[in-house]
Amino acid sequence: MSIKTGVRVSEGLVALEDEPTRLAETLDRIFTRWAKGSGAVSLTVPPLLPVADLALLDVYRNFPQLALVSSALNVSVAGIEQVGQEAVAGEFGPGSLHAAGLALPSSACYGVYLHYRNRQVPLGGELVTLVGQCFRNEDHFDGLRRLKAFRMREVVALGTPDQVTDHLGRSARFLDALAGEIGLPLERRAASDPFYDQSGERAAFQQIVPVKHEYLYRGMAIASVNTHNTFFGERCSISLSSHGPVSTSCVGFGIERWLHALADHFGGDWDQAQGTVEKAETSLA
Amino acid sequence: MSIKTGVRVSEGLVALEDEPTRLAETLDRIFTRWAKGSGAVSLTVPPLLPVADLALLDVYRNFPQLALVSSALNVSVAGIEQVGQEAVAGEFGPGSLHAAGLALPSSACYGVYLHYRNRQVPLGGELVTLVGQCFRNEDHFDGLRRLKAFRMREVVALGTPDQVTDHLGRSARFLDALAGEIGLPLERRAASDPFYDQSGERAAFQQIVPVKHEYLYRGMAIASVNTHNTFFGERCSISLSSHGPVSTSCVGFGIERWLHALADHFGGDWDQAQGTVEKAETSLA
Repeated sequence: MSIKTGVRVSEGLVALEDEPTRLAETLDRIFTRWAKGSGAVSLTVPPLLPVADLALLDVYRNFPQLALVSSALNVSVAGIEQVGQEAVAGEFGPGSLHAAGLALPSSACYGVYLHYRNRQVPLGGELVTLVGQCFRNEDHFDGLRRLKAFRMREVVALGTPDQVTDHLGRSARFLDALAGEIGLPLERRAASDPFYDQSGERAAFQQIVPVKHEYLYRGMAIASVNTHNTFFGERCSISLSSHGPVSTSCVGFGIERWLHALADHFGGDWDQAQGTVEKAETSLA
Repeated sequence: MSIKTGVRVSEGLVALEDEPTRLAETLDRIFTRWAKGSGAVSLTVPPLLPVADLALLDVYRNFPQLALVSSALNVSVAGIEQVGQEAVAGEFGPGSLHAAGLALPSSACYGVYLHYRNRQVPLGGELVTLVGQCFRNEDHFDGLRRLKAFRMREVVALGTPDQVTDHLGRSARFLDALAGEIGLPLERRAASDPFYDQSGERAAFQQIVPVKHEYLYRGMAIASVNTHNTFFGERCSISLSSHGPVSTSCVGFGIERWLHALADHFGGDWDQAQGTVEKAETSLA
């Protein structure tokens, strides 16, 4: 099946038929097995998160234009007839919408920090894995490379500065091993990330210590490792035993971008991609 | 781990920790293996669907109050300051929202019919499986029983009337076998469904032939089998070879409700539930 058959993208939204769906499942199984082998526990977070909680993480300060939020229809104000007409026309005007108190998250790991809010993490640290749908209102879309909705498998470390740094090292070695087994050429590059206050000490910190490294296939990031110092620990009041705010780091694998990279690398041959990735799975097990 | 630990529900949104996440994965693997063993192909549909497409399926006529839609923030009109203030207050007013052209689907299988829009299904019929997040703006929520966002694994048949009826028979036998292996008491009950025009011939059809059967654990539906005649085939212009509109039917498994039923049945012991479900998986393989 060619790269074109089996994938249908329209306005930043993608449908995947049998072969790419299967490859996505295999990739996610590989990421998850590695995470669990590294001691991660699984977490499922809600697909919608409170706006107030994301505001706590500076989401609307850093990227308000990327945000997507969720509303119910204000049927009693707009009237059932207008709602019906707008539905057929394909768009509900603001006057037909209730206020939006829930958001479609732009990153999967926000739900982790919010889940741990006001909790204590034991001194040994915690490793958590989850897969989540991410939503970004980008100003342009580009096949599987840049989507409005895409899945991210993340593995998040909460612990001491050393523990979260170790997680990034393990993640880097796993990415090298996986890419090596598949034969996928990946480049590692330092990147910047607007997780932090752009103004104060955070910006200075970011300039001194790169907080994000991306793994690029032909210029496209298919994974990144990120360190957040105590930013999420402070904002979410997550403490490390009695030692103050926990440090965090995460590695994220963009599922649809991996599909793009593999389809490209294997000349659009899903069977060959599937076979090679399954062989890598066996080798890494 | 008790039923309470490991599950956190707040205002219709649920977070699942390690044990229930693992059980959900196991359940979904059992449903999927059965589907694939029955000849189903996998499909991944977008998590957001165009409002105009759902309007075609009468979604906003049948349940406008249940609908949730997605908007971007109108930063240029509301201004960055107001957006920031509303974010911290936890709610974006309609004046800060763009018109909503995309919806959070209330059922997973809508994406299937829309994916097959304007296509021909071969005479042998097609069986498709997918898992999707469903969103419903219910007027009340109740633990894992009634959520604003929940996952549904569906297996959808598109084909002749006989083929889609056969799918329902196979689904019923699978549900009986699975519940039997687990020891989960399930009752089957005819139910109604507002998929159809409430006015015309559909309503008459529904009164003659029950179009939905639910499988209940202690009064709560954890699965349903549904037949749609040619409703989706007509609305989405899906034809069966050259024989006119395709017939469709589906079986849906509500993942979080299965978790609730199993946690209840096993007295809140996730380990016992996991062990029993894994044993059932082996027996059914």
